[in-house]
Amino acid sequence: MPPTITGFKTSPDGGQGMARDMPVRWALEETGQPYDVRLLTFEELKQPKHRALQPFGQIPTFEQDGLVLFESGAIVLHIALTHAGLLPDNPHGRARAISWMFAAASSVEPVIVEREMTEYTEIDKPWYEKRLPLLDERIRGRLAVLSKRLGDAPWLEGDFTAGDLMMVTVLRRLTGSDVLGMFPNLLAYVARGEARPAFKRAFAAQLAVFRAASGG
Amino acid sequence: MPPTITGFKTSPDGGQGMARDMPVRWALEETGQPYDVRLLTFEELKQPKHRALQPFGQIPTFEQDGLVLFESGAIVLHIALTHAGLLPDNPHGRARAISWMFAAASSVEPVIVEREMTEYTEIDKPWYEKRLPLLDERIRGRLAVLSKRLGDAPWLEGDFTAGDLMMVTVLRRLTGSDVLGMFPNLLAYVARGEARPAFKRAFAAQLAVFRAASGG
Repeated sequence: MPPTITGFKTSPDGGQGMARDMPVRWALEETGQPYDVRLLTFEELKQPKHRALQPFGQIPTFEQDGLVLFESGAIVLHIALTHAGLLPDNPHGRARAISWMFAAASSVEPVIVEREMTEYTEIDKPWYEKRLPLLDERIRGRLAVLSKRLGDAPWLEGDFTAGDLMMVTVLRRLTGSDVLGMFPNLLAYVARGEARPAFKRAFAAQLAVFRAASGG
Repeated sequence: MPPTITGFKTSPDGGQGMARDMPVRWALEETGQPYDVRLLTFEELKQPKHRALQPFGQIPTFEQDGLVLFESGAIVLHIALTHAGLLPDNPHGRARAISWMFAAASSVEPVIVEREMTEYTEIDKPWYEKRLPLLDERIRGRLAVLSKRLGDAPWLEGDFTAGDLMMVTVLRRLTGSDVLGMFPNLLAYVARGEARPAFKRAFAAQLAVFRAASGG
């Protein structure tokens, strides 16, 4: 049986592929697996039925043959560990690629999400404008390290891996921002990820959901 | 050859085991592996020699037989995937345990680190006191979910796993805080982790480094 993942019935990102089902769709496409999608409203996310699968009430989840997983990073890693195409064959290369998955989750994404959360929850506060430069500087510091490490290489460790999939996913959250624009090699890295046929298929699939929901 | 990890020569946590070599030491102890430690000053962390191993200039790193890893979560997972003792034998249980590692890294730790960063970098700002309740509420929301999910169980998925190791490590950052104190079952969960012999050995080892450095 193909896996079933969950996604938003009405994505708040306007079809830009920023919701967290996107890296899971991408990983499934990279490894050539068909999959089913169960779409959930925001109300359904908070209900006990979904909370039993995803305690934090978020998407995505992954269900296959009685296994239920949550956390997009964990789902991508599960796909990568059980199918060819997202990790090198050699054990050292595999471990290095997984290091970059954790680097995306722990060292890069939090400073980006912190800025997003501030926009959502503190835009009406008197300190909002004054704090933005602090938040941007934290992001810039992490991107500077990543940019230096990537250099002129196409991917972080030789061929494309699940580490690149997660890092490109995280960097896409900064699309159009001044801070990402300061690092041309990271812009090119994101563009390389977005140019992959598997990314394009995943992006089209989530965009089709958005268009159907918005009647477009 | 046993692995070599890196840690702070002078830990800023006063020997409380909050530095990120702690979960790696703990995982090595749980799996019964001897290891060597290379201690680094803050200056050494920023130098190219260390940046070649850890691009973000942080600890820990893990080196063994030519493999170099960084990110504490990735190192713990590498240890768990290559040695018995931190993941269930069955594939579904392994994937579930890994889900909790990512939940610790992506859904719980960032809101805790955000509050710590605010204490370090914004304590002199006029908005500091006003923002603390917002930050505490974000933490409380995540802990409420975790507390409900854990319930009366000793660990998140049956026996102790690398998922518990990472989650207890993250929750220990809140030791003594009011917000953790609101959830007695999480306090007991942390205490269960700290009572494990492998935790105690790891804690003693990092404390010995602190005492030697401070002449105590």
